[in-house]
Amino acid sequence: MTRGNDMNDRSHEVDVSSGAITRVAGFTASGVACGLKASGDRDLALVVCDVPASAAGVFTRNAFRAAPVLIDERLLEHNAQGMRAVIMNAGNANACTGEQGMWDAQQMIGLTEAEVGLPAGSVLVMSTGVIGHPLPMERVREGIREAASTLSLQGGHDCAEAIMTTDLVTKEAYVSLPLPGIGTISIGGIAKGSGMIAPDLGPSSGMAGIDSSSHATMLALVVTDARMAPETLQYALEEAVNISFNRITVDGDTSTNDTVLALASGLSGDSAVELGTPDYAIFLDGLTNICQSLAIQIARDGEGATKLVEIHVKGAYDDAQAVMAAKTIANSPLVKTALFGSDPNWGRILAALGRSGVHVNPVRVALWIGDTQLVANGEPIPFDPKVVSAYLSGVNVTIEVDMGLSSGQARVWTCDMSYRYVEINAEYHT
Amino acid sequence: MTRGNDMNDRSHEVDVSSGAITRVAGFTASGVACGLKASGDRDLALVVCDVPASAAGVFTRNAFRAAPVLIDERLLEHNAQGMRAVIMNAGNANACTGEQGMWDAQQMIGLTEAEVGLPAGSVLVMSTGVIGHPLPMERVREGIREAASTLSLQGGHDCAEAIMTTDLVTKEAYVSLPLPGIGTISIGGIAKGSGMIAPDLGPSSGMAGIDSSSHATMLALVVTDARMAPETLQYALEEAVNISFNRITVDGDTSTNDTVLALASGLSGDSAVELGTPDYAIFLDGLTNICQSLAIQIARDGEGATKLVEIHVKGAYDDAQAVMAAKTIANSPLVKTALFGSDPNWGRILAALGRSGVHVNPVRVALWIGDTQLVANGEPIPFDPKVVSAYLSGVNVTIEVDMGLSSGQARVWTCDMSYRYVEINAEYHT
Repeated sequence: MTRGNDMNDRSHEVDVSSGAITRVAGFTASGVACGLKASGDRDLALVVCDVPASAAGVFTRNAFRAAPVLIDERLLEHNAQGMRAVIMNAGNANACTGEQGMWDAQQMIGLTEAEVGLPAGSVLVMSTGVIGHPLPMERVREGIREAASTLSLQGGHDCAEAIMTTDLVTKEAYVSLPLPGIGTISIGGIAKGSGMIAPDLGPSSGMAGIDSSSHATMLALVVTDARMAPETLQYALEEAVNISFNRITVDGDTSTNDTVLALASGLSGDSAVELGTPDYAIFLDGLTNICQSLAIQIARDGEGATKLVEIHVKGAYDDAQAVMAAKTIANSPLVKTALFGSDPNWGRILAALGRSGVHVNPVRVALWIGDTQLVANGEPIPFDPKVVSAYLSGVNVTIEVDMGLSSGQARVWTCDMSYRYVEINAEYHT
Repeated sequence: MTRGNDMNDRSHEVDVSSGAITRVAGFTASGVACGLKASGDRDLALVVCDVPASAAGVFTRNAFRAAPVLIDERLLEHNAQGMRAVIMNAGNANACTGEQGMWDAQQMIGLTEAEVGLPAGSVLVMSTGVIGHPLPMERVREGIREAASTLSLQGGHDCAEAIMTTDLVTKEAYVSLPLPGIGTISIGGIAKGSGMIAPDLGPSSGMAGIDSSSHATMLALVVTDARMAPETLQYALEEAVNISFNRITVDGDTSTNDTVLALASGLSGDSAVELGTPDYAIFLDGLTNICQSLAIQIARDGEGATKLVEIHVKGAYDDAQAVMAAKTIANSPLVKTALFGSDPNWGRILAALGRSGVHVNPVRVALWIGDTQLVANGEPIPFDPKVVSAYLSGVNVTIEVDMGLSSGQARVWTCDMSYRYVEINAEYHT
């Protein structure tokens, strides 16, 4: 189900300027501070659709799935054609919180429905933050009241801000696309994530769908004014996520709360995007671009990151093995620290490839850092370390490995590992 | 093939004082400096057995196996009953060095045979250090000459020192055991390793043997005066390595050079240790204790480590799943940095368990740090964070997870991840 080439179809420019989500017809948003973050920053976000929306979602495959994940799965099974809102909080993940956590997540939904005036079962919920602490519901209640009263067409950026945890920047993306059979539609998205990033997202157990073989708390919400059935939206979301959010890693640690939700208002017009049509292909391409943009924004803003690193493995036995090889390289602490040091340590890259568990024929392996080839036929070739080190000291780095076996390929995005990574994670106390 | 309990059979005290390897009857050793290390420290080590020894070995399963690994495998297939010596160097791994590397490794063997006066094909070789650089053979030649001329019964510690790379301390272990049917035998060992530690050692392709499901350059050499057939020694070595070296991880990065070799001089007497006898069981127990001691010394001296961490998973579906769960926790950068920060962040431990890919029923999971229980039935229980944080600030930490499913269990040893880890690996340039 993976496309042969992930990156070549960027026919539609993604706009990463702020306010993405409320540029899409039918959506208002808000982001407020209710005291979940000690900093006093915004920590509660609300997105509302003017009309019942088609909805879809993919969720973490971690065995410890947080309460909001469990509840969203259930809601999507029963009401995927009539969703109206998503309520989100940062500062507390509502994970490993047992029955109380389930009740609190339900409360967040009920309070949102009451404050906005929406029917029962029409609100989805996402949480991110510390694990194992009950939500301070009195603050959440106040926050939901304020979020509901401040919903606006200008609220997109506040909303993106309110879901940040250790993120340094908001993640937003917007695109508008002409669909030949339908007219122009738009897609907007927000995301958060910086640590505990190695998404392994799949459909909920009750849904038929595409499976993926990969492995954040990362949260993302994508909205569109396209008209489409929930099943079509679900299918497209899974295809897009498998080659975007499921292709990033900061630390290899898959969260208990990872969630990507999608809402389609249908306000672009009366014609629906149907599976298997040229319109679907263009929509999927746009959705994939949004998801890749958001995913790459997360990898670039990984905890302590000084650079974005793209690992491109080609010539693998198949795409699944290319993903596995690329992720093993991306998650290697020795590779990540060498990247931080701008050290062209190709030996560590080959060592990671060699332990990845995929088919490797050492004498066929070639490796490039940027435009410089360092390895041919499994052996080093002469290169100027100063040139490569200068390249590696930039903020965008590409490593390409050709395994020389077959046509399997994948791109994975990650970041380096710095002193700051250790600082953030050793000094963030429970 | 894993024993039910790894640690309860410590009936024989392991002595970690220096000179372990030359306390075993039949072995002389030396360690010299020949300029492979920029520091000028010892970098070439030699161990010689007075008589033809039974030999066994396990080697990295990394696809990029270094020249010395490939050559030792071949030698053991053809002459496992008549080995006389092991030549070792640090500072250069002779990995990813192609045909030249194979030739250089053969040269090291040939030079040793010539200098010591040993028959052809009776010397094994191990290398550790930087990947992808040809060995400076002129220096190596000088080193071998000096090492051969300085062999002595007091050379054990110099030898242990000469195989260190980023190690801060030597790793040595010695035990003497009364075998009822045979008399007293002794086992001594040395090891090195600090980074790129996540051994995944198995028998060479040409050998029948035990398989393991786990994942350093780590090098180890174990010598004994017990008399035993090479097949018996190989079997015992694999059993011991599977619950020692294959149970440690510093960074999850499995090296191209990991090797454990064993030599048995037979000088304890005329009676051989035979598989399936009480003597074998006691020998195996002693060998396992030596290997666990050396393995734990490596984990404790992991790059930048401030503490040794034992992860004990029990109640797993089976032992293999317990190993997988424990290694996922041990390799989690979020868990390792929390340990550095002495933060009782049980949520990160559960999140790592939940992504490990093993059978998990969240509501059955319990977790202890030291003697303090933090989680019962998958949910936090009240504990004093100050008490746990004080415990975590010590140099020996135990984390125990009871998965509540079945009787599978495993112990894995690792260390925390500190600023110094990043410094060592970002500033070590190729």
